Amino acid sequence: MATGHMFMAMSLDGFVAREDFGLDWLMKQKTEGEDHGHDAFMASVDGIVMGSGSYRTVLTFDAWPYEKPVIVMSRTLSPDDVPEHLRGKVTVSALAPREVMQFVSRQGWTRVYIDGGLIIQSFLREGLIADMTVTVVPILIGQGKRMFGALDADIDLHLLESKSFPSGLVTSRYAVV
Amino acid sequence: MATGHMFMAMSLDGFVAREDFGLDWLMKQKTEGEDHGHDAFMASVDGIVMGSGSYRTVLTFDAWPYEKPVIVMSRTLSPDDVPEHLRGKVTVSALAPREVMQFVSRQGWTRVYIDGGLIIQSFLREGLIADMTVTVVPILIGQGKRMFGALDADIDLHLLESKSFPSGLVTSRYAVV
Repeated sequence: MATGHMFMAMSLDGFVAREDFGLDWLMKQKTEGEDHGHDAFMASVDGIVMGSGSYRTVLTFDAWPYEKPVIVMSRTLSPDDVPEHLRGKVTVSALAPREVMQFVSRQGWTRVYIDGGLIIQSFLREGLIADMTVTVVPILIGQGKRMFGALDADIDLHLLESKSFPSGLVTSRYAVV
Repeated sequence: MATGHMFMAMSLDGFVAREDFGLDWLMKQKTEGEDHGHDAFMASVDGIVMGSGSYRTVLTFDAWPYEKPVIVMSRTLSPDDVPEHLRGKVTVSALAPREVMQFVSRQGWTRVYIDGGLIIQSFLREGLIADMTVTVVPILIGQGKRMFGALDADIDLHLLESKSFPSGLVTSRYAVV
């Protein structure tokens, strides 16, 4: 079956976005000229699975940032909610995490970018994440959407590499043991 | 006035201890032979301020681990709760964070180790932390005592250095901007 891979930035206190999904705290970081591995990571996956919260945030961007196919996991959105210019690029799915992975596997995907806080948490609990690249941003924002959530059991990680940047971002890649 | 300094380990999901203050997830890490800077840090401070939760955890250790004077911030503990062999080493105080810093400053302290989750959070909110050394442990534990809490405003940090170890621990030192 296809494997799930995370590539996320969080504040040092563990948030991926403010309560209103705001990313100003992230966008203000002075990271010009730094390669945090995003392009290489995107090139390595067959597509992206995200939650409706992340999807709504991405929709507010000036341009749709993904070339790879995107599956939006939602039980409330319908295919009609996808704007015309994104038809064929974005699929809405009400499937559970494991079913989504089986679905994309049948389509030939082998590596899947799992994006968004709540989605990450459910895929982690289901054992569907193979590795995670976590960039820690040098700020405390105090409240917001958390990257990680409650677990039924500990998840041990194996650090594959860690790198810091002049901006103060620290990117670490972990395999799930 | 004396400055506050943090030196803490947290799970990747931001916990310093389990709900019952357990540290098994930390103790099991294979860190033999690694220098995460603890001794140099301890040598750099004049004393330690901790909360009653951390104090109770330290009391369960085989031996009292601190040579420097310790102030336990508590409104419920009394001086009589300090075991005889720790009199002179441990002081119980019901003062607020800023008052504690003024108190130790008058005693000649210039650098204070601020230890323990809730204590750290209140000192951070009061602007009493100058820098923090945060070691991220390669494990997700899902729930427990958090290192960081709610804030009235963002706290920007400046990364001073970051280092990873064969055990998978990543130690980063930040100045509070």
